[in-house]
Amino acid sequence: RSGEMAKLTQLIDNEVFRAYATYATIVLLKMMLMSLITAYFRISRKAFVNPEDTASFGKGESAKKYLRTDPSVERVRRGHLNDLENIVPFLGIGLLYALSGPELSTALLHFRIFTGARIAHTFAYLIPLPQPARGLSWAVAYAVTISMAYKVLKTALYL
Amino acid sequence: RSGEMAKLTQLIDNEVFRAYATYATIVLLKMMLMSLITAYFRISRKAFVNPEDTASFGKGESAKKYLRTDPSVERVRRGHLNDLENIVPFLGIGLLYALSGPELSTALLHFRIFTGARIAHTFAYLIPLPQPARGLSWAVAYAVTISMAYKVLKTALYL
Amino acid sequence: RSGEMAKLTQLIDNEVFRAYATYATIVLLKMMLMSLITAYFRISRKAFVNPEDTASFGKGESAKKYLRTDPSVERVRRGHLNDLENIVPFLGIGLLYALSGPELSTALLHFRIFTGARIAHTFAYLIPLPQPARGLSWAVAYAVTISMAYKVLKTALYL
Repeated sequence: RSGEMAKLTQLIDNEVFRAYATYATIVLLKMMLMSLITAYFRISRKAFVNPEDTASFGKGESAKKYLRTDPSVERVRRGHLNDLENIVPFLGIGLLYALSGPELSTALLHFRIFTGARIAHTFAYLIPLPQPARGLSWAVAYAVTISMAYKVLKTALYL
Repeated sequence: RSGEMAKLTQLIDNEVFRAYATYATIVLLKMMLMSLITAYFRISRKAFVNPEDTASFGKGESAKKYLRTDPSVERVRRGHLNDLENIVPFLGIGLLYALSGPELSTALLHFRIFTGARIAHTFAYLIPLPQPARGLSWAVAYAVTISMAYKVLKTALYL
Repeated sequence: RSGEMAKLTQLIDNEVFRAYATYATIVLLKMMLMSLITAYFRISRKAFVNPEDTASFGKGESAKKYLRTDPSVERVRRGHLNDLENIVPFLGIGLLYALSGPELSTALLHFRIFTGARIAHTFAYLIPLPQPARGLSWAVAYAVTISMAYKVLKTALYL
């Protein structure tokens, strides 16, 4: 079985695949951070959705007033959902792109711009920066994903 | 390193894997289209969530009236979320299924029906078509994913 | 082409990869179950979002009263979204982790704890159990994903 394991390790030894693994992990960790930021705002703003989450604030009406929406919490949640909507396509298309044999430098360019744009998007959303900062960072990451999808379809198309 | 690259390219040379790459990319592009449709309805209906998005409409009350929900925008957003809920399982289970050595014709059947059903689902949601059009297209794609999951577990089960 | 197929089959023959395939599929099926639970509560509580879904209840006002939110439906939907937010990182990081050559026993430990924690999270959310049951099960699965991400970056880092 060590022979098979070697073959798997070869995949992770390939530089394009390593670059994909690195940037996919970074961008997923960034997305996971949104959960912590949501929790931080829920606790600091005392704004919860689930009755069981406010039980420690006492019973009845005194706890019920913390079941409310807060603009900061909702903003982070929108950023989180936008991450899901854009990072899921990157994960899937990016993996197939990494396996489609692109030039290392071209692949790095795609992965770096996507990751940078999504980090910029998070800052633009959470600060928030005036438009078109958020729109532009969203569009850049979107365009990078389309470019990778084009390469995948050009290389692998089998309908 | 060209030897390793060759091995990777072999993966994308396999016909089942190429079919997976093709349909996964198509279905992800379809999902990404939902972002553009949302943006189109937000702009044409003038219905935004973020105050910074309405700044170009003027200051104060004149801009504030565009911070509102619109039924068409909400409909597209529900379709988008439904895509996420159903395309994420397809991406993961479909990849494992493609690696589990299915017959090419069987694999193509799965990928084509899933992709067709999800495109039909989008039309059924956005037009909208009377039920059970949306429910049925959802169920077909769901059943295809279950069928692939069964094959993956039958081939790979290691608890 | 049977040679290429053999190579793919070798991937699914690797025990770590088979373990990943098994637990990724289980956790995705669990997430898909949330759709059925949502549908069950929507129908039993008669709480829908789309006008076309209530058409069978009659026309006009008699059907319109079923276009409403229900606490149980919303609870399942929050559980579903939380699954997406946490299972997507597991899918991506877990795949890369499985390819990074971990010990089989260590990999199994990661996959089993993650899967167990997410199943516990669902029960904690839907019953619902008093806190910190839900928070703890969430945190355990989150920590497992971070641990896998650390291994991926340690093995594959290529910036």
